[in-house]
Amino acid sequence: MTNLDKLIKHFERFPGIGGRQARRFAFHVLTLPDADVTEIAELLTNLQSSVIECSRCHRFFSKNDGPTEMCSICTDGNRDRSKLMVVERDTDVQSIERSGIYNGLYFVLGGTIPLLESAESNKLRGGALKASIDAQITEDLTEIILGFSVNPDGENTGRYVETLLKEHIAEHNLTITQLGRGLSTGSELEYADPETIKNALKNRS
Amino acid sequence: MTNLDKLIKHFERFPGIGGRQARRFAFHVLTLPDADVTEIAELLTNLQSSVIECSRCHRFFSKNDGPTEMCSICTDGNRDRSKLMVVERDTDVQSIERSGIYNGLYFVLGGTIPLLESAESNKLRGGALKASIDAQITEDLTEIILGFSVNPDGENTGRYVETLLKEHIAEHNLTITQLGRGLSTGSELEYADPETIKNALKNRS
Amino acid sequence: MTNLDKLIKHFERFPGIGGRQARRFAFHVLTLPDADVTEIAELLTNLQSSVIECSRCHRFFSKNDGPTEMCSICTDGNRDRSKLMVVERDTDVQSIERSGIYNGLYFVLGGTIPLLESAESNKLRGGALKASIDAQITEDLTEIILGFSVNPDGENTGRYVETLLKEHIAEHNLTITQLGRGLSTGSELEYADPETIKNALKNRS
Amino acid sequence: MTNLDKLIKHFERFPGIGGRQARRFAFHVLTLPDADVTEIAELLTNLQSSVIECSRCHRFFSKNDGPTEMCSICTDGNRDRSKLMVVERDTDVQSIERSGIYNGLYFVLGGTIPLLESAESNKLRGGALKASIDAQITEDLTEIILGFSVNPDGENTGRYVETLLKEHIAEHNLTITQLGRGLSTGSELEYADPETIKNALKNRS
Repeated sequence: MTNLDKLIKHFERFPGIGGRQARRFAFHVLTLPDADVTEIAELLTNLQSSVIECSRCHRFFSKNDGPTEMCSICTDGNRDRSKLMVVERDTDVQSIERSGIYNGLYFVLGGTIPLLESAESNKLRGGALKASIDAQITEDLTEIILGFSVNPDGENTGRYVETLLKEHIAEHNLTITQLGRGLSTGSELEYADPETIKNALKNRS
Repeated sequence: MTNLDKLIKHFERFPGIGGRQARRFAFHVLTLPDADVTEIAELLTNLQSSVIECSRCHRFFSKNDGPTEMCSICTDGNRDRSKLMVVERDTDVQSIERSGIYNGLYFVLGGTIPLLESAESNKLRGGALKASIDAQITEDLTEIILGFSVNPDGENTGRYVETLLKEHIAEHNLTITQLGRGLSTGSELEYADPETIKNALKNRS
Repeated sequence: MTNLDKLIKHFERFPGIGGRQARRFAFHVLTLPDADVTEIAELLTNLQSSVIECSRCHRFFSKNDGPTEMCSICTDGNRDRSKLMVVERDTDVQSIERSGIYNGLYFVLGGTIPLLESAESNKLRGGALKASIDAQITEDLTEIILGFSVNPDGENTGRYVETLLKEHIAEHNLTITQLGRGLSTGSELEYADPETIKNALKNRS
Repeated sequence: MTNLDKLIKHFERFPGIGGRQARRFAFHVLTLPDADVTEIAELLTNLQSSVIECSRCHRFFSKNDGPTEMCSICTDGNRDRSKLMVVERDTDVQSIERSGIYNGLYFVLGGTIPLLESAESNKLRGGALKASIDAQITEDLTEIILGFSVNPDGENTGRYVETLLKEHIAEHNLTITQLGRGLSTGSELEYADPETIKNALKNRS
């Protein structure tokens, strides 16, 4: 396999990229000025050392945000420490922060557990989640919010986290909630599925 | 304008049909056996007389469902008469009935009020809605549920109904609710809009 | 089955219409003024008698176009009678006329022969095609153009017509051609299929 | 700007990639094993030196294909040297080679000239094209094929090349052709645009 083919193989593993687009990426790189290619290679090499995984919520943040091992959210004295939202990925944190409505802390699980996969074989941060909860309990944690997508993998992951935290929840008298279900922006009643209608009725207000 | 063109014009006013498909409909009719065309013409002619608009909820139902002026839902003694859901169209009733989760009564408003249109110019059944509410108040109505789509027209129509019913609600101590908002089936947190995230957080449970 | 359900069944057989849209059509009819419904029913009933199938090309045309049994194209003295294009449907004639580039005559076969269906079982106008060709031969017909879509059914129908006309072609020394293949508007070379590239190369000019 | 943000900016310039997907790429890199990141960085750094731009057709090829400055197509004694096809990009060459139907040589222009851009400001390999043509003229070149997409940019680029080569063509009595236009695979007559119908009629055979 040539170097070109090897690079294409790596690009094919990028999220959402197929063989044809991976190939176009490689040709794109070939047309870049040397300085750009060098910079990309250096950024890649140094990315993991210039980015820190927050020791508390495990989301990634840039080192120059501060000299700490914890991210700007986890160290923010104004955030509401009674709430912890567990999400799949870093991008979920960004999506919720953009909405400007949530003021609690987060925990990034690192992925989902696909329906047909055993929880044991996954690489999710189950142990780290327990540790973060323990730390936050000393700061008056009362509620854990499951912030997962409404699809089979998201719901399976929700059940996994509930089972994982069963004892913690009982012992520390925590509430476990999930994000509300109902009609989302753009939903038309005529085309809504029964499950969504059921939730929309239950959550009417 | 030829008869063919006249028919095409009528088909163009069918919901979701453009000029090209209207034309294909006309050619489709031309290839049908005489007996089919005759039957369609008769069904059309007799449709309005074989279908009754329920005097209570104003949805359409077939005459052979019974000898009554009210539909099978409005006359069903087992439905919960404390609830009335106001919806845009007949197809919304069907969508909610399919979910099997709602046991109250309905009122079909007959459409929406587009954002930029004045409420006065519309042909919605505002007067009939008040009459149906009055009738149901004698049957212990306590809650009016706004069952509209989550889009500008649906929300505008919701505001119109609230204004319309203001006095009724105050006088009879009714509760007015809207269908719950939140993550609907298939929603991915990463792509959810801020409004949906806000509602999902508010309605967490 | 109620009249409403019967009408919905008929609408479901309209080209491109599924159950849900057929139902919306029926509710649309229910909201129409009586006068409109009556007009539609009359137009449908009279459509076949107000529209004539041209005795030569078998496309449909409105009676008030003239007192003839042949359509305005077939009777047009300025059309080039050396060419006859065989197409599937009336709408194909319209599409080609819109392009303004073809000045010969047409024959509407009335459909395609799906790949897995025997030619015998179909209702295509094979016999009428032969008759129209015979008529045009007296008017100096030299070329028969196969105007079919480039998909399996279209190509199967092309082969059927070639076989059907084998003797006519040989006897009267006719040329049989098919519409040119190549890159169509919007084709990008990178995404073109091998067959299209092959034709584009063969037909380069 | 943090290193993370810088990398995201680079990914945003990859073909077809928006801000959100660029961000997901960066997070993808963060989750990769060190060894993979190192390999990607090295492949990027060495790509331009492990890949050669063919001195004749200017497409990229891997060095280990051979010890030459020309690619395997340009050095292949069995290719038909009477033909030269000018294309936009490397991926076009691959698309045509996949079809297995063309046996001439290629020239990769390196892009298109957008309709509203002046030809002078572009970075296309106009000079190199002339040099390659000169070289191939000694090998009996007779035809230059314009292999561009059928869209405004592709057609504008075709006109640019024609103007650029005007004198060469006249002087050496070359033929300049473009890929044939017509119905491509999947084209339905009813939906074909007038230009495609016109070409399909002109190129019928």
